[in-house]
Amino acid sequence: MKDVNVGICGLGTVGGGTFNVLTRNAELIAGRAGCNIRITRVASRRHRDDMDLGSVPFSTEIFDVVNDPSVDVVVELIGGYETAKELVLAAIGNGKHVVTANKALVAVHGNEIFEAAEKAGVVVAYEAAVAGGIPVMKAIREGMAANRIDWIAGIINGTGNYILTEMRAGRAFADVLKEAQDLGYAEADPTFDVEGIDAAHKLTILASAGFGVPLQFDKAFTEGISEVTPYDIAHAEQLGYRIKHLGIARRRDEGIELRVHPTLVPKSHLIAQVDGVLNAVLMDGDAVGQTMYYGPGAGAEATASAVIADIVDVARISASTGALRVPYLGFRPEAMENLDVLSMEEVQSAYYLRITALDRPGVLAKIASILSEHGINIESIMQKESELKDGRIPVIILTHTVQERQVNRAIEEMESLSDIDGKVVRIRAENFN
Amino acid sequence: MKDVNVGICGLGTVGGGTFNVLTRNAELIAGRAGCNIRITRVASRRHRDDMDLGSVPFSTEIFDVVNDPSVDVVVELIGGYETAKELVLAAIGNGKHVVTANKALVAVHGNEIFEAAEKAGVVVAYEAAVAGGIPVMKAIREGMAANRIDWIAGIINGTGNYILTEMRAGRAFADVLKEAQDLGYAEADPTFDVEGIDAAHKLTILASAGFGVPLQFDKAFTEGISEVTPYDIAHAEQLGYRIKHLGIARRRDEGIELRVHPTLVPKSHLIAQVDGVLNAVLMDGDAVGQTMYYGPGAGAEATASAVIADIVDVARISASTGALRVPYLGFRPEAMENLDVLSMEEVQSAYYLRITALDRPGVLAKIASILSEHGINIESIMQKESELKDGRIPVIILTHTVQERQVNRAIEEMESLSDIDGKVVRIRAENFN
Ligand SMILES: NC(=O)c1ccc[n+]([C@@H]2O[C@H](COP(=O)([O-])OP(=O)(O)OC[C@H]3O[C@@H](n4cnc5c(N)ncnc54)[C@H](OP(=O)(O)O)[C@@H]3O)[C@@H](O)[C@H]2O)c1
Ligand SMILES: NC(=O)c1ccc[n+]([C@@H]2O[C@H](COP(=O)([O-])OP(=O)(O)OC[C@H]3O[C@@H](n4cnc5c(N)ncnc54)[C@H](OP(=O)(O)O)[C@@H]3O)[C@@H](O)[C@H]2O)c1
Repeated sequence: MKDVNVGICGLGTVGGGTFNVLTRNAELIAGRAGCNIRITRVASRRHRDDMDLGSVPFSTEIFDVVNDPSVDVVVELIGGYETAKELVLAAIGNGKHVVTANKALVAVHGNEIFEAAEKAGVVVAYEAAVAGGIPVMKAIREGMAANRIDWIAGIINGTGNYILTEMRAGRAFADVLKEAQDLGYAEADPTFDVEGIDAAHKLTILASAGFGVPLQFDKAFTEGISEVTPYDIAHAEQLGYRIKHLGIARRRDEGIELRVHPTLVPKSHLIAQVDGVLNAVLMDGDAVGQTMYYGPGAGAEATASAVIADIVDVARISASTGALRVPYLGFRPEAMENLDVLSMEEVQSAYYLRITALDRPGVLAKIASILSEHGINIESIMQKESELKDGRIPVIILTHTVQERQVNRAIEEMESLSDIDGKVVRIRAENFN
Repeated sequence: MKDVNVGICGLGTVGGGTFNVLTRNAELIAGRAGCNIRITRVASRRHRDDMDLGSVPFSTEIFDVVNDPSVDVVVELIGGYETAKELVLAAIGNGKHVVTANKALVAVHGNEIFEAAEKAGVVVAYEAAVAGGIPVMKAIREGMAANRIDWIAGIINGTGNYILTEMRAGRAFADVLKEAQDLGYAEADPTFDVEGIDAAHKLTILASAGFGVPLQFDKAFTEGISEVTPYDIAHAEQLGYRIKHLGIARRRDEGIELRVHPTLVPKSHLIAQVDGVLNAVLMDGDAVGQTMYYGPGAGAEATASAVIADIVDVARISASTGALRVPYLGFRPEAMENLDVLSMEEVQSAYYLRITALDRPGVLAKIASILSEHGINIESIMQKESELKDGRIPVIILTHTVQERQVNRAIEEMESLSDIDGKVVRIRAENFN
């Protein structure tokens, strides 16, 4: 198998995450990419004592990575504008592909960088720059290729969304901001996040890729959330709306709207339900209608997931011949595993059980003891006294996760009890955690 | 610019949509793909009188498409198993790339088809087969490339989700099914949808691409929704859960779980909020955590959107040199438009206005007349009598969509009234329609 050599610049949150995921999932990623993605160089201002780089050479000079002839892909994770721009242009000049998570850089210097890259014939990829781990640039640049995109609306700053979510409980902005800072969700200087500048960087990028217009960050409008009050949040709710800090881009014949501000959105719309630090991007295409992409917009490994997806994209082109870029099922045939499908008795799930019990003393105890004998723990139980009818009473149980076999045996036993009428109703339950 | 020639087999719902979108958005798609995607042949059992095929040759013999040497990409949209399989294998045999929306075909015959395609070095793409217009195969095969995917859970049949959504109002399954049939959401024979077979086809494909295991549709477990009662739906709600017809695939060391059945999901989870005919796929990766993809799972143009994304994928490889497959901003530089960003005064939005009015007769009339003079229509208005304090009363207004300029002028005028105290609070609102 071919090697694709990666050099990482900046070993902070995202750089560390990228190193760790590439190392941990090396074999799986090779099976998907069709080549080995090797980290051959890392540079950052300081060595990280909490990380084991193995035999990978480390230097404190990031330009060492760019000038290393063995490096195929330079991963820029230092952040900021000027040095990052120099670094990326130098990498392009040396004929290297670039992957970056730096939205400020792309929003402000993207036009220039892309022009240089086009001339040099190298890739500059930036999936991680917009909405962190959500593959939304892939959706917009590739998945939506058939569509005239009419508008894009995104919750693209986790800090702001966390604050607005907490404020729904009636708490003031300043209060929640302080808490967010204590929890590490917000920076000591929160301006970038709460004034919408970070969101405007991302929105600028989304709008350009969605509409096919140059990046124009300097013309984006931003209004922060510091003036939003619990009073207005409550009254918006009465009107059927929720207040979100949205980035909105709309394509009109006269020009494009590009704006970040607090926005009332209908409570019934899915985007209103995106709470806490999570991100979501909603877009409207003339063919597909509305689609939405949801997930973590930040975090070491979540962001690394997007960085690595970009690296794999580059690697797949290098590794493939002809049109066969992505393997049919995402993995190279020789990397597929012959894992069997388990029988339903082996499946693990939680269960909703509805038992029609005769209204006799001790019935609940019998049910509980059958469940316990089969190793089934109860999450909640409701005996619906109010629904007593013809001497029968429904008992509704939600179990913890168990093997289906255990539940089947317990149900058989319960159904054989004279205190229980007819069949036990069983519906599976998932908690997604 | 290069041409990529497409032949469409089957001119039904999706075939018609694909023809129409490719024709309508030809220029935009060329700007994204870097080549002209031309429909050079169409075949289907019957001519469609409601469609104008222009100068594109039409035949009733689908194998004409496969045998036409000018066709680069065969788009299979006839549905079904046997003929579709023959058609696709013949196309592969002739060295043509294939795009299909046929989940039954991929789930049942995919292993064989992909093996043949791998040997022939051609692409077989099937984005539209899973969750219609949502680019979820792209997300899973490419966006998630860094991740070990642990589980996937999807609402992947719109008919079933529509029925369960309506049943929350207390209506019986049979009732809602009949209505769905009348509305055209459900087939006359609804078995495929309500018994989970269609969902199992899609789940089988998701699981294989997520976990890197062969397609094993015959081992998927399916349980339909016909036994779900409004009674259990209501009691699940009391426990904090909603019942959805989920496809669930989980990777465990012993094997994979592959099952479609009614499932309780926490009401607080975003996937519980996906209502009506819409689809959503949620997945958990070890690096990224949970991401979700939401949108229309069916429909002529929504499905066409995914079919065309696949065609563009093939075309981009043919059109590009080296690694530059996707243009930096999704469009070829020469296809970018120089659209200006509009000023905020030119932006169109709805508005939430909170006005602190003095409690005098006629104040509401004055506000209403100012709004009307500026051409601003009112969606709703609340005068909060209960919040009268110090002779001041809040008036809260939600407007229809207008130009921001109009609202600015109206606010200036209101703020100059002696009946109005202090500043008018203004927050923008979006209805996404
Ligand atoms: N954190 C996230 O969740 C997230 C999500 C999406 C995108 N991003 C983007 O990813 C990029 C990196 O973010 P991060 O959170 O990983 O930042 P970070 O934790 O501050 O990491 C940056 C690293 O680069 C090093 N560095 C900066 N300038 C350098 C220079 N001139 N020479 C050598 N080393 C240098 C820093 O060293 P010192 O600490 O010693 O200065 C630090 O180790 C940023 O563009 C950010 O916007 C981050
Ligand atoms: N509809 C959706 O929203 C949707 C969404 C996702 C995926 N899909 C998939 O897309 C595929 C097409 O679905 P559809 O809804 O477009 O079906 P459809 O409306 O029934 O269209 C199929 C077309 O193919 C023609 N056809 C079938 N067999 C043929 C043959 N042997 N020779 C010539 N013509 C033939 C049919 O002609 P006659 O009508 O004359 O038989 C019909 O015009 C299916 O695999 C389906 O599962 C559909």
